[in-house]
Amino acid sequence: MARLVMKFGGTSVADMDRIRHAAAHIRREREAGNHVVAVVSAMAGETNRLVTFTKTAGRLQDPREYDMVVSAGEQVTAGLMAMVLQDMGVPARSYAGWQLPIRTDGAHGKARITAIEGRDVLAAATSGQVAVVTGFQGISPGNRMTTLGRGGSDTSAVALAGALKADRCDIYTDVDGVYTSDPRVVPRARRLDRIAYEEMLEMASLGAKVLQTRSVEIAMVHRVPVMVRLSFADPAASAVGTLVCDEDEIVEKLVVSGIACSTDEAKITLVRVADRPGKAAAIFGALADANINVDMIVQNISEGGQATDLTFTVSNADLERAVRVLEEARNEISYERLLNAHGAAKVSIIGVGMRSHAGVAQTMFRALADKGINIEVISTSEIKVSVLIDAEYAELAVRALHTAFGLDAD
Amino acid sequence: MARLVMKFGGTSVADMDRIRHAAAHIRREREAGNHVVAVVSAMAGETNRLVTFTKTAGRLQDPREYDMVVSAGEQVTAGLMAMVLQDMGVPARSYAGWQLPIRTDGAHGKARITAIEGRDVLAAATSGQVAVVTGFQGISPGNRMTTLGRGGSDTSAVALAGALKADRCDIYTDVDGVYTSDPRVVPRARRLDRIAYEEMLEMASLGAKVLQTRSVEIAMVHRVPVMVRLSFADPAASAVGTLVCDEDEIVEKLVVSGIACSTDEAKITLVRVADRPGKAAAIFGALADANINVDMIVQNISEGGQATDLTFTVSNADLERAVRVLEEARNEISYERLLNAHGAAKVSIIGVGMRSHAGVAQTMFRALADKGINIEVISTSEIKVSVLIDAEYAELAVRALHTAFGLDAD
Repeated sequence: MARLVMKFGGTSVADMDRIRHAAAHIRREREAGNHVVAVVSAMAGETNRLVTFTKTAGRLQDPREYDMVVSAGEQVTAGLMAMVLQDMGVPARSYAGWQLPIRTDGAHGKARITAIEGRDVLAAATSGQVAVVTGFQGISPGNRMTTLGRGGSDTSAVALAGALKADRCDIYTDVDGVYTSDPRVVPRARRLDRIAYEEMLEMASLGAKVLQTRSVEIAMVHRVPVMVRLSFADPAASAVGTLVCDEDEIVEKLVVSGIACSTDEAKITLVRVADRPGKAAAIFGALADANINVDMIVQNISEGGQATDLTFTVSNADLERAVRVLEEARNEISYERLLNAHGAAKVSIIGVGMRSHAGVAQTMFRALADKGINIEVISTSEIKVSVLIDAEYAELAVRALHTAFGLDAD
Repeated sequence: MARLVMKFGGTSVADMDRIRHAAAHIRREREAGNHVVAVVSAMAGETNRLVTFTKTAGRLQDPREYDMVVSAGEQVTAGLMAMVLQDMGVPARSYAGWQLPIRTDGAHGKARITAIEGRDVLAAATSGQVAVVTGFQGISPGNRMTTLGRGGSDTSAVALAGALKADRCDIYTDVDGVYTSDPRVVPRARRLDRIAYEEMLEMASLGAKVLQTRSVEIAMVHRVPVMVRLSFADPAASAVGTLVCDEDEIVEKLVVSGIACSTDEAKITLVRVADRPGKAAAIFGALADANINVDMIVQNISEGGQATDLTFTVSNADLERAVRVLEEARNEISYERLLNAHGAAKVSIIGVGMRSHAGVAQTMFRALADKGINIEVISTSEIKVSVLIDAEYAELAVRALHTAFGLDAD
């Protein structure tokens, strides 16, 4: 007997048939004697429909009213899921975010959960009733509806699992787990049975869309084991999936667990920036003020201590704006030229095993060199090495690394 | 300067253009210096869409979950209306039923408002901000979402006006007021400038769909003047309408203010019912137990004190069930024969002026006799006379009475 939180995303509750299918998963777990709390998203397409309404409401977008409108979708699914469960003979009741309540800060549209009052939900689950909780939403300190941003239902589920001290949080989605790389790019990619929180966090930040980054952070902090599973699987059988868990619970650690790739990278180089204290602050301060996220940063060693070249990446969407900001701040920053280019790709290898293995980066660089791929920027962390390359070589690079680190399926 | 509650129904907020039009009415009242609280329904069609979802969710219809699902519609409109108002430069914010809160009993699907905490809304309105409140919904003693039943937003608006001690509650709808009769039947029907609560109550119960009966009851109890107005009117000008108000505020009282007609009547006659105490209770008790509403009842004087004929009406939809119930209880009730027929019409004249005028019923009966219309059952109240006639004559009867009581427009 375990305490489970089971989360179903938008495609898993897209229509009444899918809701019924999801409900059958819940019934299976409950019949196995588990105490179940379900978390549901809005039906696929519903949130978009509501967002479109808000866009036509006018230029002014009061984020509090935006949240009032878009949070309605989850309320509908929660009620329907409870009805469907009851129809199957499974006692169930719905809870809106305000009914627990799930408290958040006041950052409407991208609120962060600050506290969850789980008492009622836990009492329901313990008594054998399935509590169906709206994902994605909460209430602000001023009692207004808040939403957690796209993918926020993952965060709701994991945070709820943490608050309830659940044994596991199952995320039912449209893939059957976390893969060593994107199967569309790497046909021989394989599903991981387990992945460490830290690895999943890097994968999520690097664009693997299986779990929202924030939800992985919360899982890591509260040590909630998270299972990614396929919602379309036969609900009669407990399907396989990938368990996101503590590093210690992974017996056979791979040196590299995954290869991630992001092609949404644009590169900016400032040539001959005056090499004086405060220059970096001037550059990145100006970009931060304009809400532009800077990712990889490389500064070459200054020759003669007078000037240096600085290269960094921003997302493609931000490139134009970033260039404008830097040109406006040219006098303050003082640089000779500004080079910029779309079409870069960031390829990363991720694995907690790196910590205890030497030569991992070396293997990566050699594998890329063997394919004639030029590395433009390198950045590393304890469990990750990322390189910036020409986007044309992205898929080739990912496949080469997948093979080089022994990840290919048989 | 007045304190106003302005209510917009589903057709008045059916799409973004209509919401903008409704918002312009609100802006006009606010610019005139009034303190405004708005009450909105779900966008037309939205509640039906949600109800359809619940129907496909299964045979079991937990009314608490039904309310969870269908109450989402008003939440969307409230947020959108607040955004549109802000876009027009009118300060506004939305309130869901639970945010005031609007408290109801636990009769889900047809809950009754028990208390409204109007403090926040009133503070907003007084400070010049338009408070946009979701109609149709509240919360139960157990903090679950409740809905007030179809047309419930009228009730929300009037109850809120009562709680806020508003000077007036304006109901914006798809007609420009209350008419002396249904204009589709009586081309010369005319809009009333004023109508007394009691009259409106009879009109609403008799099928005039302008206002929900319950909302008129609340208006009467709290003495809230209610104005029925056309939402599609030019929002730049304050449109005419019908004021539902206290009898004392109507200077020129008509003897008869309106002619109502319901063709949804079926007639049942029990022939030779044993004339003993408790028989009526046996008959109507059995029907009440089966949730069948009985309307007009006529009992002929018993000849010789042994048996009597009893005639009454039920709605067409209930006829078959009523007959079955009465046949099952035949031994207990003891009657000779049961006659039943669809196709009756109830035609009523309504007017507070009747109290002080003799011969009103006589005028009615003569007008019908002049057209060769046979009266089958008569029932009267202080301000109403209803007759049951063959439904084929319904329109003819209504027009004849409209003329006989001097209601025809010039």
